Amino acid sequence: MINKLIENIKKTNAPIVVGLDPMLGYIPEYITRQAFAEFGETPEGAAEAVWQFNKAIVDATYDLIPAVKPQIAMYEQFGIPGLQAFVRTVDYCKSKGLVVIGDVKRGDIGSTSAAYATAHLGRIQIGQSTFTPFGEDFATVNPYLGTDGIKPFLDVCKEEKKGIFILVKTSNPSSGEFQDRLVDGRPLYELVGEKVAEWAESCMGDTYSCVGAVVGATYPEMGKVLRKVLPKSYILVPGYGAQGGKAADLVHYFNEDGLGAIVNSSRGIIAAWKQEKYAAFGAEHFAAASRQAVVDMIADISGALAAR
Amino acid sequence: MINKLIENIKKTNAPIVVGLDPMLGYIPEYITRQAFAEFGETPEGAAEAVWQFNKAIVDATYDLIPAVKPQIAMYEQFGIPGLQAFVRTVDYCKSKGLVVIGDVKRGDIGSTSAAYATAHLGRIQIGQSTFTPFGEDFATVNPYLGTDGIKPFLDVCKEEKKGIFILVKTSNPSSGEFQDRLVDGRPLYELVGEKVAEWAESCMGDTYSCVGAVVGATYPEMGKVLRKVLPKSYILVPGYGAQGGKAADLVHYFNEDGLGAIVNSSRGIIAAWKQEKYAAFGAEHFAAASRQAVVDMIADISGALAAR
Repeated sequence: MINKLIENIKKTNAPIVVGLDPMLGYIPEYITRQAFAEFGETPEGAAEAVWQFNKAIVDATYDLIPAVKPQIAMYEQFGIPGLQAFVRTVDYCKSKGLVVIGDVKRGDIGSTSAAYATAHLGRIQIGQSTFTPFGEDFATVNPYLGTDGIKPFLDVCKEEKKGIFILVKTSNPSSGEFQDRLVDGRPLYELVGEKVAEWAESCMGDTYSCVGAVVGATYPEMGKVLRKVLPKSYILVPGYGAQGGKAADLVHYFNEDGLGAIVNSSRGIIAAWKQEKYAAFGAEHFAAASRQAVVDMIADISGALAAR
Repeated sequence: MINKLIENIKKTNAPIVVGLDPMLGYIPEYITRQAFAEFGETPEGAAEAVWQFNKAIVDATYDLIPAVKPQIAMYEQFGIPGLQAFVRTVDYCKSKGLVVIGDVKRGDIGSTSAAYATAHLGRIQIGQSTFTPFGEDFATVNPYLGTDGIKPFLDVCKEEKKGIFILVKTSNPSSGEFQDRLVDGRPLYELVGEKVAEWAESCMGDTYSCVGAVVGATYPEMGKVLRKVLPKSYILVPGYGAQGGKAADLVHYFNEDGLGAIVNSSRGIIAAWKQEKYAAFGAEHFAAASRQAVVDMIADISGALAAR
């Protein structure tokens, strides 16, 4: 799947991923109104609004982008109907040729981690048949529990040709509370990065590993260090745009080959219509606003990469 | 909810929690066969088998125990029908007066963490109505992202009178890879423990905090230290029984008041009928075997506590 991700990135010339993290507040009122008219002011109604919103954004952007990253928490908050909208979104994005990174940040041990890996990247055997529970192409994974938590994901990745991105240095202000603490004079995130590099070696695609890392755009100096620690891993970069990460800061997340990183934007794309910059589109053309925001983001990042 | 957990523990005199982590291999064949006959060899069929299995175990044990801990991964692996069985299990356990600890190990930042907190412990407003997505009483949470990941859970805990258990030192063999690394001469898990103590202070019940910690039974020396670091937190202790933790090792996880810890057993209880010790019950009386295993576990732990 890492090969397909790279192929998609080369084809679109866009090392970006659109975060499908729909909050009800991002969805134009006419969509919510229609969904509520059909399903009531219920989780089913909210899930329908989320699905219609996602579908419009995917339809308006899929030819420009290599991948999407739905954040499962935003669906989980609507309970079962929300997760049905998640599955529908994953399936639809895959039908459009997009690589789907499930931002699930799961992490447990042994058979439990194996169950998560099965749920998100694998297939489950029931009697004589096999089923695909959620069917993402990649999943994000939390490293706090160590190798016991990662190994079951690696097994599924190898078997199903899927991939994972492991949290190394997250984009939030308090990420340093534990991640930056010095161990033998070096920050914990570097040790986690080294471990990720080790796991990455064990699961290689053609040029990059199926094991990537999450490194926030908001810590560019650390990104520069981690790029070297993780030569064969793709870096998934959250925190661009709304969280403050700038394109010029992100060039060091990429390798010399122009590959090796994929920058996420969620709110900056899917809620573009609510920004002053794209207000002229109006609520009714929210998806066109998202498309323009994608075009602008690609230009911003490509420009920074060309200028380095 | 911490008050209710303590009340339940005092009432049953049983500081234990039954882990409802059903694997298909634990379920007697006659249950699976009947579920498949009704729903086919499908995720729906598997989910029905899981639900029937859970219900029988809850019916056979609820009067002896204060709480259950369903592991969501084991349901998530069956996709949407699996999660429906999870919801059904949560609801049923609550109707029986049990406290439900959702072992979900979620953890993200900001609005995403808030969405997880809403999903598992809170309510969501949709239009003029509010809904309860999953409705657990407690959730387990991963600390790797720092305060930004925890704060939204604390907010929901305060508002809804719910609770969380934060991973501090996990029971698995490789938990030391990161958790034991020395920071200023002290292991990372101690620093995480101190932070948990800080968060715990901000969300107190009558005698204990709504913020607890997960500390594995397999590391009793560390449990002893963390007991002191976390005076006001309940410690949720996985790793008893099947993973190797022994009752005598666990006495130091408790405070002088005999409270402060709750020991989990999953497989040891729910798959008791597959152990030699309880084989006489036979597959058909698997729930009675679980009840006997609960009785034995309570005696084992009470005995160790009485002997200290």
